[in-house]
Amino acid sequence: MDASDRWKRAAALRAVELVESGMLVGLGTGSTARHFIADLGARLSAGELGDVRAVPSSEESERQALALGIPIVDLPAEGLDLAVDGMDEVTDELDAIKGLGGALTREKIVASAARRFVLIGDDRKRVARLGERAPLPVEVVRFGVNRTRALLRELGAEPELRGGAQTPAVTDNGNLIVDLRFDGPFDAAAVAEALAAVPGVVEHGLFLGMAERAFIAGEAGVTELVAPSS
Amino acid sequence: MDASDRWKRAAALRAVELVESGMLVGLGTGSTARHFIADLGARLSAGELGDVRAVPSSEESERQALALGIPIVDLPAEGLDLAVDGMDEVTDELDAIKGLGGALTREKIVASAARRFVLIGDDRKRVARLGERAPLPVEVVRFGVNRTRALLRELGAEPELRGGAQTPAVTDNGNLIVDLRFDGPFDAAAVAEALAAVPGVVEHGLFLGMAERAFIAGEAGVTELVAPSS
Repeated sequence: MDASDRWKRAAALRAVELVESGMLVGLGTGSTARHFIADLGARLSAGELGDVRAVPSSEESERQALALGIPIVDLPAEGLDLAVDGMDEVTDELDAIKGLGGALTREKIVASAARRFVLIGDDRKRVARLGERAPLPVEVVRFGVNRTRALLRELGAEPELRGGAQTPAVTDNGNLIVDLRFDGPFDAAAVAEALAAVPGVVEHGLFLGMAERAFIAGEAGVTELVAPSS
Repeated sequence: MDASDRWKRAAALRAVELVESGMLVGLGTGSTARHFIADLGARLSAGELGDVRAVPSSEESERQALALGIPIVDLPAEGLDLAVDGMDEVTDELDAIKGLGGALTREKIVASAARRFVLIGDDRKRVARLGERAPLPVEVVRFGVNRTRALLRELGAEPELRGGAQTPAVTDNGNLIVDLRFDGPFDAAAVAEALAAVPGVVEHGLFLGMAERAFIAGEAGVTELVAPSS
């Protein structure tokens, strides 16, 4: 386990402490969420937690949870108690970019269904403003993708079809991913509103005002950030 | 051909007059669009029009166009010259509800790509305010559909899964359709904005401010309506 992995695990362990017996828990996707799922499985196996059921945000996380014996259920109408996921970028206000793993639509459905949504990651993901380093992933329907890319370019970003035109990456929902590369930080609220209005866009990787807290690990240990509105 | 079909055909014929040789034309979906496609095919066969290429908004319309020898192309990045489609409801301002045929997402992508978007139909579709008769179709991803329905119910509508839970209708994009039944007319702009913000919603059947004109046929012949902004 390298330093980055140790930090991710340290952040994941803090989030697992929020899980209580009887909870319905949303599982994120990606290298950091993987640590959370592993630790959750370990606590269930050890009998430290009981009657926890989980909703995975990807087929990848579902496979991992099933292998660990974590009971899986469909996302219920009444929502979830808690959801925990990694991120590609996060600000001090806990606005985030997600979707590098390609599961952004299910991740957002799961996160928005949770009464508490918690981000975990290492401190290289912290930014002053969104767009400093990460591209913004957008899930789009296949039909008309060249036209949709042209509309996305009008937002001031270079829209790259993930995987390329010959072998495009396909999401669990059967859609495509366009990664928007802005020149630098952008007005996240304005971009989110504009993206929602583009026909052909299924969902985008801006998670604004959704997280309640974040556990960010680095050299100095784990820092807990709480959202301004919490 | 019953009266309703005669009217639909009369409206379609007026729209076909807008097609010029060399145009890229978007083809709608449904019983009225079917007349437009048939008449367009007839004019191409008769040599009255040449070098027209079409982008169909559904597999159904693609099959019809191919059978008629209308050249089909992918939606190009630069958009379309004209798109013609039917509707479920239309106001005097040319705001419309579409999606009864289940093709609303591709229809909206095609309509928004067209420099001129024209609605055709019979006058039983005219309403003073949207929601008088037609349900509002919403295309949603399969994942978390019960949770998405719960969120849609919060908009003040009864969300019915088209086809039912056992045999749900599946769109050309592989998604599901939820028909929102409001008690009566609703604030279309507010509902459109709220729907765009629901994770899990791919697209909705509100086509607001998109149509440039409409040809509406009835007992008294064909009425041409022009959008306020045109």
